[in-house]
Amino acid sequence: MSSRAVARLARVAGHITASGPSASSSAPVSTATTRRMAPTRKHKVAIIGSGNWGSAIAKILAENTTAHPHLFESEVRMWVFEEDYQLPSSHKKYDASKHSQPKKLSSLINELNENVKYLPNIALPPNVVADPSILSAVKDASLLIFNVPHQFVSKICDQIHGHIVPYARAISCIKGVDVSPEGISLFSDVIGRKLGIYCGALSGANIANEVAEEKFCETTIAYDPPGTLTPCPEEFPVIDHSLWKHLFHRPYFHVSMIHDVAGTSLGGALKNVIAIGAGFVDGMGWGDNAKAAIMRVGILEMRKFGLMFFDSCKSETFTEESCGVADLITSCAGGRNHKCAKLSVEQGRPIEEIEAEVLNGQKLQGTLTALEVNEFLRARGKENEFPLMTAVHKILIREASVEDIPRLLADADHTSTA
Amino acid sequence: MSSRAVARLARVAGHITASGPSASSSAPVSTATTRRMAPTRKHKVAIIGSGNWGSAIAKILAENTTAHPHLFESEVRMWVFEEDYQLPSSHKKYDASKHSQPKKLSSLINELNENVKYLPNIALPPNVVADPSILSAVKDASLLIFNVPHQFVSKICDQIHGHIVPYARAISCIKGVDVSPEGISLFSDVIGRKLGIYCGALSGANIANEVAEEKFCETTIAYDPPGTLTPCPEEFPVIDHSLWKHLFHRPYFHVSMIHDVAGTSLGGALKNVIAIGAGFVDGMGWGDNAKAAIMRVGILEMRKFGLMFFDSCKSETFTEESCGVADLITSCAGGRNHKCAKLSVEQGRPIEEIEAEVLNGQKLQGTLTALEVNEFLRARGKENEFPLMTAVHKILIREASVEDIPRLLADADHTSTA
Repeated sequence: MSSRAVARLARVAGHITASGPSASSSAPVSTATTRRMAPTRKHKVAIIGSGNWGSAIAKILAENTTAHPHLFESEVRMWVFEEDYQLPSSHKKYDASKHSQPKKLSSLINELNENVKYLPNIALPPNVVADPSILSAVKDASLLIFNVPHQFVSKICDQIHGHIVPYARAISCIKGVDVSPEGISLFSDVIGRKLGIYCGALSGANIANEVAEEKFCETTIAYDPPGTLTPCPEEFPVIDHSLWKHLFHRPYFHVSMIHDVAGTSLGGALKNVIAIGAGFVDGMGWGDNAKAAIMRVGILEMRKFGLMFFDSCKSETFTEESCGVADLITSCAGGRNHKCAKLSVEQGRPIEEIEAEVLNGQKLQGTLTALEVNEFLRARGKENEFPLMTAVHKILIREASVEDIPRLLADADHTSTA
Repeated sequence: MSSRAVARLARVAGHITASGPSASSSAPVSTATTRRMAPTRKHKVAIIGSGNWGSAIAKILAENTTAHPHLFESEVRMWVFEEDYQLPSSHKKYDASKHSQPKKLSSLINELNENVKYLPNIALPPNVVADPSILSAVKDASLLIFNVPHQFVSKICDQIHGHIVPYARAISCIKGVDVSPEGISLFSDVIGRKLGIYCGALSGANIANEVAEEKFCETTIAYDPPGTLTPCPEEFPVIDHSLWKHLFHRPYFHVSMIHDVAGTSLGGALKNVIAIGAGFVDGMGWGDNAKAAIMRVGILEMRKFGLMFFDSCKSETFTEESCGVADLITSCAGGRNHKCAKLSVEQGRPIEEIEAEVLNGQKLQGTLTALEVNEFLRARGKENEFPLMTAVHKILIREASVEDIPRLLADADHTSTA
């Protein structure tokens, strides 16, 4: 059976979800304001989530609703999971007359224009309005941005289902995908399906604090809605690539718009497996060229994975976009997966020990994803077609050693002279 | 005029040389020994050059002539530019009865099976035979490997012209290309034209010493001969991708065979310009994501350059091959261009000063290439289509500052909302 057939079969069985009809990523981007009569209404923007990354994105959204008042209402509602927070007396905005007792985080954010707990020392535009009520936050919003920990996606969607406008469109900024032996699920698809709307995805070589500090970086937004949605009323600006770009693009945050939602989401998960491989090789002291070889093979395996299991995936999402090659480069340069894998080899100790020491109880994403991806591939008899990801998994479960990597990669090279 | 037309026009004018007829890089690789009657003769291999990289390649060639005795004669002749060399008394093979006086380098190499001057402490296989006579070295060799400093290519070709077998084929391991306002010249084309034979190219994320130490890495070999060559006699194994792979591929040195000679050669030159850009951004302390963005844009500009000026260039040479993305990654991680650019920004001093301090009188390749590429692009009115390379040049000549890079890249982004 061809890999396309496998993918189709899995999709029919409801396990693998794709990102809608395939469309060329080089399709022209129309200008939001030229396709119809001048719109009389503006889009209301809501962001669901106010962590580190959510707050950084809220800042961008609010800067752009101000910059493009013909497209967007100024106010950006940000849903805050409410909690009490004691502002430290060392905080530069601390005022003993107001802050001697813990206050609601949403109140502090609105009072100080700063997410003092999750993105401290970064000024949020005053048109970011923290809202502890999720139903109030999403009310009348036609553009919904999701930026919550992935384990909360499903519950949050249940809460707001039926309380959003039917013509809303969404973008998920949640990194990665859900991999299990049964299949791969995109968070954007979960959101879209649960809410009965369309949801695209944002992913790239982005670290929340650096974005918030307006250090230059790039991101990728994939948006490829089917033609069967509840149409957005004619009074609104068209919701297309150009509109999303107006909402997200900043001088310090360059946006590339594409159509491949699955590829955009996959990169954020699979790169962690490759980063562990790169860390292993770095730990051996094999030098930058060996590491670059692992990264190159990694990009091609990520691409192969996408093309094999998602009809809508495009090669160039992996080889050319920020969510692909750039995010991988960053993760292999300074990410925690790379770092722990490197230390594990250098110190000759299991990566779980390093993880426990270095991450203060947090878990490495890459070791978990390596296992999940392996179970997924094994269930489909495809382990051997992904020699690097399989090698990383085998090393993690002590069935192979790092010294084996060059041989394992060569064995799987179909043009090898072995 | 289309860019293709520009390229064709330039080629007709004799300035830009392309790598022969376009051919798919995914064409099947035939097995050298199955296409015809069993060959009765074997290929003789000669390497022209015995520096650091030449000696590392000679080691590989000699390992593979031993490993594949049905294809190659065992002996690999290595032409040595003769000089007197005094073996240091600290060398582990020093013998006062033999080495108290300077000796010919070629004699020392053959006596000690080591290039004691240019690749010390690496054992060369005994079937590497150093030869100070270039005519003797290339005599009867059907496979010629060029690995000399680029400024000597032309003279060496003049010396051996008429002294090689007419059915010889060559591979150039000389990094980069020659760029001038008049055009771009590939060293492989110079060799091929001067000798009346065909010459391909090898390039990748390779550092000679690491390859010699058998640290894992990958390389790319491009070979795409036209059908009009003097045929290699039927008694020899066919000279095709499979044969070259047998000659170069090692367990620690993985070879990818492609057809795009121009792309393979361009990467090795243009990456140095991008590495300077990455160093600038690193020097600003903008973080790994900014650097990854520069590298991503760099890969795409390198690709655009290749496709615009060489009909035979393939996109994937830049985005997927060791000579493209992997070599760029390595250069931006630890290369001297990156390092000097970073120090220049960090210390607020001209890069020429850093260069003089750090490189002991050697010159940075990237600053020179940035200038040459800019002159080449300006002569064709194409500066604005390569905003990153143009920005690097402008920063080097103090017409722009590093802070301008995000704006300069955004201005040139055709889908920008600026």
